[in-house]
Amino acid sequence: MREVLADAAFQLYLERGFERTTVDDIVARAGVGRRSFFRYFPSKEDAVFPDHESCLADMTAFLDAASDERDAIDVVCDGARLVLRLYAADPQFSVQRYRLTREVPGLRTYELSVVRRYERTLAGYLRQRWNGAENGALRAEVAAASVVAAHNNGLRSWLRSGGEGDAEAAVDQALDLVRTMWAAAPQSPAPATEDDEVVVMVVPKGAPMWRVIQRVESALRDD
Amino acid sequence: MREVLADAAFQLYLERGFERTTVDDIVARAGVGRRSFFRYFPSKEDAVFPDHESCLADMTAFLDAASDERDAIDVVCDGARLVLRLYAADPQFSVQRYRLTREVPGLRTYELSVVRRYERTLAGYLRQRWNGAENGALRAEVAAASVVAAHNNGLRSWLRSGGEGDAEAAVDQALDLVRTMWAAAPQSPAPATEDDEVVVMVVPKGAPMWRVIQRVESALRDD
Repeated sequence: MREVLADAAFQLYLERGFERTTVDDIVARAGVGRRSFFRYFPSKEDAVFPDHESCLADMTAFLDAASDERDAIDVVCDGARLVLRLYAADPQFSVQRYRLTREVPGLRTYELSVVRRYERTLAGYLRQRWNGAENGALRAEVAAASVVAAHNNGLRSWLRSGGEGDAEAAVDQALDLVRTMWAAAPQSPAPATEDDEVVVMVVPKGAPMWRVIQRVESALRDD
Repeated sequence: MREVLADAAFQLYLERGFERTTVDDIVARAGVGRRSFFRYFPSKEDAVFPDHESCLADMTAFLDAASDERDAIDVVCDGARLVLRLYAADPQFSVQRYRLTREVPGLRTYELSVVRRYERTLAGYLRQRWNGAENGALRAEVAAASVVAAHNNGLRSWLRSGGEGDAEAAVDQALDLVRTMWAAAPQSPAPATEDDEVVVMVVPKGAPMWRVIQRVESALRDD
């Protein structure tokens, strides 16, 4: 029933436009009574994004179950990928919805609040992982915002291309930027090595900082 | 007139609640006709945030005028500080509005779209600065999201404290985290030194990565 209503709503939004479609139109198309609509969806906007509530619940469950042994940034990147998979599961619907959302200010605002809920969920996980660390809450919010921005950049490229190509690859590449940055960031736990060991590095002075970091990391990983 | 209407609206929202205040109440309190309200504000929500349009315009003008010689991240951090100053100019109003916004879902959503517009403005500047650089657009979006998240973290701490203490210091500290991270990030231009020079670094293996970066940076700066 929920799915039938969401399908009917979405088809009407595409045919007539979002603003010109009434709830009465939707229930008539779906062949149900008016009150059924509001039993499943608080508003016309909600019917455009029928899967985000369950995706948020999946994300929360995933984060709750994640091992504290894993790198916290890796965990939130994997959490964000659950959203990508939701979109990639039905490319045609996702692309049509993306185009519809660009055109309707009310849907864009609705989408912003959904994105914000994902961001808060990821930030909440990081805050708990970095609890007690210096600036833990600040870092958690900045990291969650970075992950969401990178995820959405990859997702949008794929949506704008009409759902062609590999959505996961686009998002993975974007998330890799964030992972690299945070691997080099102040909050990273020190590698578990003896305090009195030293690494001697020789780097050309012209080398960009990210290459220096890569070398330090690989040196620390080597033994 | 605009200010008188915004003041009347805000006082009524505090006294009666946002939902229970009508536009008729507002114009009666301000002593003007109903159509005056809509001449200045498209909606009841807009009257709660009367200064963001001009602040967005100020931010755009500031970014347009910024020298390309300056570090791009430093420029967007300064751009974000314009928002902070808007809040810090009237602590009592800012704190009351913060509390009101927490309570009214429609105002929270409105605030989200304002924040998103600031973020897009900053991202647009960075995209143009990093035009042609590898993953320039992706980096621009992630950096803008980081700056906004850090700024808002500092701003919210100050608002939650009831507007006590130094708002600028709270935001500066938060933005410093982002500046440090991006100084170490892949897109940073290489320091202008001779290619054949080398730095030899000796670092305890247990040292956290941020300390390693600090040392590399200070070594490269030294001569």
